[in-house]
Amino acid sequence: MEKPKIVEELKPFFEPKAVAIIGATDKKGKVGNVIFENFKMNKERGIFKGNIYPVNPKLDEIEGYKVYKSVEELPEDTDLAVISIPAKFVPATMKDIAKKGIKSVVIITGGFGELGEEGKRMEQEILEIARENGIRVIGPNCVGVYVPDTGVDTVFLPESKMDRPKSGEIAFVSQSGAFAAAMLDWAAMAGIGISKMVSYGNKLDVDDADLMDYFIHDDATKVVTFYIEGVKDGRKFIESAKRISQVKPVIALKSGRTEYGAKAASSHTGSLAGADTIYDAVFKQTGVLRAEDFEHMFDVAKAFAKCKLPKGDRVGIITDGGGAGVMASDAVAKFGLRMADLSEESLRYLKEKFPPHAVAGNPTDVVGDTDAQRYKYAIEAFVNDPNVDAIVVIVLFQVPLLDEMEIIDILAEYKEKSDKPIVAVAMGGKKTEHYAKILEEKGVPVYPTPERGVRAIAGLVHYAKYLERVKG
Amino acid sequence: MEKPKIVEELKPFFEPKAVAIIGATDKKGKVGNVIFENFKMNKERGIFKGNIYPVNPKLDEIEGYKVYKSVEELPEDTDLAVISIPAKFVPATMKDIAKKGIKSVVIITGGFGELGEEGKRMEQEILEIARENGIRVIGPNCVGVYVPDTGVDTVFLPESKMDRPKSGEIAFVSQSGAFAAAMLDWAAMAGIGISKMVSYGNKLDVDDADLMDYFIHDDATKVVTFYIEGVKDGRKFIESAKRISQVKPVIALKSGRTEYGAKAASSHTGSLAGADTIYDAVFKQTGVLRAEDFEHMFDVAKAFAKCKLPKGDRVGIITDGGGAGVMASDAVAKFGLRMADLSEESLRYLKEKFPPHAVAGNPTDVVGDTDAQRYKYAIEAFVNDPNVDAIVVIVLFQVPLLDEMEIIDILAEYKEKSDKPIVAVAMGGKKTEHYAKILEEKGVPVYPTPERGVRAIAGLVHYAKYLERVKG
Repeated sequence: MEKPKIVEELKPFFEPKAVAIIGATDKKGKVGNVIFENFKMNKERGIFKGNIYPVNPKLDEIEGYKVYKSVEELPEDTDLAVISIPAKFVPATMKDIAKKGIKSVVIITGGFGELGEEGKRMEQEILEIARENGIRVIGPNCVGVYVPDTGVDTVFLPESKMDRPKSGEIAFVSQSGAFAAAMLDWAAMAGIGISKMVSYGNKLDVDDADLMDYFIHDDATKVVTFYIEGVKDGRKFIESAKRISQVKPVIALKSGRTEYGAKAASSHTGSLAGADTIYDAVFKQTGVLRAEDFEHMFDVAKAFAKCKLPKGDRVGIITDGGGAGVMASDAVAKFGLRMADLSEESLRYLKEKFPPHAVAGNPTDVVGDTDAQRYKYAIEAFVNDPNVDAIVVIVLFQVPLLDEMEIIDILAEYKEKSDKPIVAVAMGGKKTEHYAKILEEKGVPVYPTPERGVRAIAGLVHYAKYLERVKG
Repeated sequence: MEKPKIVEELKPFFEPKAVAIIGATDKKGKVGNVIFENFKMNKERGIFKGNIYPVNPKLDEIEGYKVYKSVEELPEDTDLAVISIPAKFVPATMKDIAKKGIKSVVIITGGFGELGEEGKRMEQEILEIARENGIRVIGPNCVGVYVPDTGVDTVFLPESKMDRPKSGEIAFVSQSGAFAAAMLDWAAMAGIGISKMVSYGNKLDVDDADLMDYFIHDDATKVVTFYIEGVKDGRKFIESAKRISQVKPVIALKSGRTEYGAKAASSHTGSLAGADTIYDAVFKQTGVLRAEDFEHMFDVAKAFAKCKLPKGDRVGIITDGGGAGVMASDAVAKFGLRMADLSEESLRYLKEKFPPHAVAGNPTDVVGDTDAQRYKYAIEAFVNDPNVDAIVVIVLFQVPLLDEMEIIDILAEYKEKSDKPIVAVAMGGKKTEHYAKILEEKGVPVYPTPERGVRAIAGLVHYAKYLERVKG
């Protein structure tokens, strides 16, 4: 696929040769200080490979870094500017940036369109300068960009306030800055890896459609997630969404669904939420999966990042707790999937291998006195059974005879070699969290409830069916 | 209210004078050993105050405890027997227990009705002995009873496999033993306090209705939660549910809702799940709140344990992140509640106290540069506003100027002195979890997403409306 212009245009946001931090300061805790510290720290860690140029007319030096008095003075390799000076100074600075030939700008500063007419006028002025000079702008009123792989981090909340997630296959785009920050913090704890995060705030220039077009060609990204309050250019969104859905899945959490939510959204980002049924129709038409809430969004994203796509909607469930198997079966119906009918061969094999009190079937209940070997028989039968398209393995690690590391290795092995998606469900406390983390590091997505595990599979099935529909 | 017979009958299960552990052994990891160790450890910790009598014909002594050769030899103060010997020996042991005059028996042993006809015959024999001799039986095929306050702990998974939750106001009853174990483990991690846990397995004698009648009079219990796959005696269930709902709320997670789930339930506990619409009708008629999944069940239970009941369904939302406010507003509509219209006075007060970029309204957005004081103005206005019945305070602890301990203390103070329910929502990672835990210890329930916080409020409103309907 030929790479469109947007790929080159957005590249400096994610891997700049040199970043100018306009409004950098030595005052701890200030936005311009935190952003400078982020880049400096990532440079010291060897992650950020570019140059760092603080800009501030009142300073000569910050922590050993030369400070530039003006944009004009900046070295020629500067290809990204991050602005955190007060709103009223931004238009003039944009002119300097244009003159300097810098083509990528993140405007962190708030106090524009969201505050009224004067702010809207300034936004218009900035946009005109950008358009006339081929400059792409992320923001204003945003937390900007975070890329674990390249060390770009304009998130102005210091690491003492907010953890950063590790590198991974999920791109995350958010219209809300605070939500983006909370999500990054949460993803770090949940062990969810991020390829790129973009929080675009007032979405003056770079928008969802641009980012989708970029992510089509971004090898680091396997799945794209969006938190959206409103889309400005519906037609552009639809075209880009259709394009990317051919190649990788998109999951959107669109809030402002209800009258109450729409009203709140309009006073938050000024978004016209629009009739929710229109969004539903657009998402359906373009293959975008609509998430109910952020847990749903990342549950499904994790499955896309780690799993193969299923060939159909027939789910097989293996459990060591009967109750959890019942809940998972209910979830299969609730999320519009089918329970697989195991083949005669699978049933015969399991009955031969199982003690009389274990239950061969779907769900297969290896019961509370199971060891890892009994799970292995079940997983093997399900993996080989042509009637099973996707597998949910519920592991209550609490049962007394189950060697935790043994079942983890079995799951990781079959997940790797099978061409079916396999997800795990583990309910419990601290020990369960510990083992779940190890299992995820070995490539198996783990969910805390049967419902969430099955719902993640439903996301895979939804997308696989979309691909089938549009491709053949 | 006069205490019914059941209160005295079930008392020995929860606070026995002396427990006989029939099948106690010194073989580490065996069921009879873990249960003995649980009681012994809790005795050493000073929690279990009763006597412990291991019973095993082949041993003289276990870890300094005298072992009784038979039930007949047991001291006269024995008022609870816990049985973990093989199924085939249980009927004869029940006869000995009857002769000895012990009236409370937990049968941990599995291999009865769930395995077929011979098991059902033995169950019938046990039931006849129990009925003839006024013995109450919990089980068989269960993990039994856990009471943090009295140190009763028949859960045969050692603490190395499964953590135990602290003491609290929530009673938890489970038809599934493995689910009960996973839930206790999870509750321990989540900081959820349990008054009493009962896992009754095949529900031969003591059932949901008996337990509801007991919990009506149990001062330690403020709210009762059930995991149920099927109810045997519908009329008895309805009568008891109606009685307890007058006094304290009941939340039920009834699985086997769908055809798939019902089929799985029948092979798990042999439960006839029955038409789900019937359960829906029964729960509605009796004021029992139906939970979607275990997170929903404990989310709402936590709110009941900590909050006052609302006088109406008008919700007020305070947030420092606009996006989270939009999501919470959507949730208010989704869960059938109303957004409160703030009074003119509240709006005037907030506009006077707020900087121009903060948003007075519902949601009130104190925005990302908030300090704790700005939250305090908002909470005060909402607490005093006659148009607000319940309050959801979203705190993204990541924002830079918010002193975490200050906002925690403000929330705890207003939650305590207001007659309205107040819940908090905190999204984020490890630091957020840390502060959320402190906030919960100070009595404010905290939820990880706006949806779950609002849904918990919806549970309170649902029950408050039921009480209003049946009482006035």
